[in-house]
Amino acid sequence: MDVRPIGVFDSGIGGLTAVRQMIRLLPGEDIVYFGDTGRVPYGGRSAETIVRYARQDVAFLRSFDLKAIVIACGTVSTTSLSVLRQENALPILGVVGPAAKAAAAATLNGRIGVVGTKATIRSGAYESAIRALLPEAYLVPKACPLLVPLVEEGRVYPGDPVTERVAEEYLSSVRAEGVDTLVLGCTHYPLLHDVIAAYMGSGVTLIDTGEEAARAVMALLKERDMLGDAQRSGDRRYYASDSAEDFAAMASLFLGSDIAGRAEHVAIENY
Amino acid sequence: MDVRPIGVFDSGIGGLTAVRQMIRLLPGEDIVYFGDTGRVPYGGRSAETIVRYARQDVAFLRSFDLKAIVIACGTVSTTSLSVLRQENALPILGVVGPAAKAAAAATLNGRIGVVGTKATIRSGAYESAIRALLPEAYLVPKACPLLVPLVEEGRVYPGDPVTERVAEEYLSSVRAEGVDTLVLGCTHYPLLHDVIAAYMGSGVTLIDTGEEAARAVMALLKERDMLGDAQRSGDRRYYASDSAEDFAAMASLFLGSDIAGRAEHVAIENY
Repeated sequence: MDVRPIGVFDSGIGGLTAVRQMIRLLPGEDIVYFGDTGRVPYGGRSAETIVRYARQDVAFLRSFDLKAIVIACGTVSTTSLSVLRQENALPILGVVGPAAKAAAAATLNGRIGVVGTKATIRSGAYESAIRALLPEAYLVPKACPLLVPLVEEGRVYPGDPVTERVAEEYLSSVRAEGVDTLVLGCTHYPLLHDVIAAYMGSGVTLIDTGEEAARAVMALLKERDMLGDAQRSGDRRYYASDSAEDFAAMASLFLGSDIAGRAEHVAIENY
Repeated sequence: MDVRPIGVFDSGIGGLTAVRQMIRLLPGEDIVYFGDTGRVPYGGRSAETIVRYARQDVAFLRSFDLKAIVIACGTVSTTSLSVLRQENALPILGVVGPAAKAAAAATLNGRIGVVGTKATIRSGAYESAIRALLPEAYLVPKACPLLVPLVEEGRVYPGDPVTERVAEEYLSSVRAEGVDTLVLGCTHYPLLHDVIAAYMGSGVTLIDTGEEAARAVMALLKERDMLGDAQRSGDRRYYASDSAEDFAAMASLFLGSDIAGRAEHVAIENY
């Protein structure tokens, strides 16, 4: 048994969709979450800046004695995972590998769509990871930069005319390619699950990167005999680089539960 | 004559709409611009974080020997102007005062709309500044958080169905109040001039905060006899906290001219 916490970080609050799945699958685990809300979003920034920010995020999390780190951010996973692994001795999981594995397992016709931020799509990381598992896959990547601002405005519900129009614009070319699997390559997108599922149709499997990352953590901890005490309820601590109150106020949308008073501010530029 | 440069900063590239107007009105002035593209946007962040970032932006600009600073950012002008003035001995102009003056002068019916980011509208700064000049003014403030992402996607042209729909959503309540003047309280919004003007109708005067700030700088320099050499063409230097190449690539949309190769990176967290 290993009762040390798991560290999770994201450029902002989106990574809480992964935490939500971790709490569901691994209710006994302690979790330390850091959201870089003072510098969010990472998606449009250069690779050099993303790596620099990601190093600071990891340095802060490692001020705790962790057993593993989950990068619950598509942008960081696609740009910085190998660097962070080289520089840190503990297990680090990104969201790309687990989602690629799930997509390769789910597709029947070998046609897979990938949606994400500009930086994620530009990196080609999901495509490379899927091709490594399924060399004959036909991949349809699509950057969807307006979806994150729409989610952060809470405009996530079917029937919202702007969100439906934007989703249709981005997804029409993906749907037209006949994909049967779509990787939601950004932690904000699970909140748009219903809008995206309705547009893509029932024949398309949506891959939730946060859920797949949570499954991968569970598998890793089991394999290395590092699971915590399943008999108790895990402790969760939340940190943000902008206002803790603002973080807590937004968190419930992503986490599905209230964390009022349980978030703290951290000056990330000091790490 | 004072040939020292004018410093201009913004959370990102939006402030270049003010630089564009300064170049038009004051072609002989040297300008040093800093865009905090590594931490943009400021609009949704807490006041404490915005003040901290603004202090660093000013500290970097002051590594040059400047005659004045223009805060070409609605969010910083509304949250941090008085603090920055207290801490710095040179003249500092924000975008709020000049735009409020122009709006108070332009209105005939005393009904004035104000659009901006969440932080700008939450601050109530435009309303206070207009009321100080025109106590009986009827003000209609409206936060428009999706307009900045739309501009940054280049979706600024009349006929774009998403931009038109979003603009209509935000502006319908403002238009319904019968305003005859609308303050575009964000440096991104001049790029949406045509979309906003078409929706508001020809009877509504749009106030461009960048243009009013440029006029205010001109007035200040004249008044204090600090104008530069009008016989020559001013030198302009551009700095960004994220990739200089990305900055230069986006800049032309805002500036109306190309600055390829004339932007440099600066590590703003060191200031």
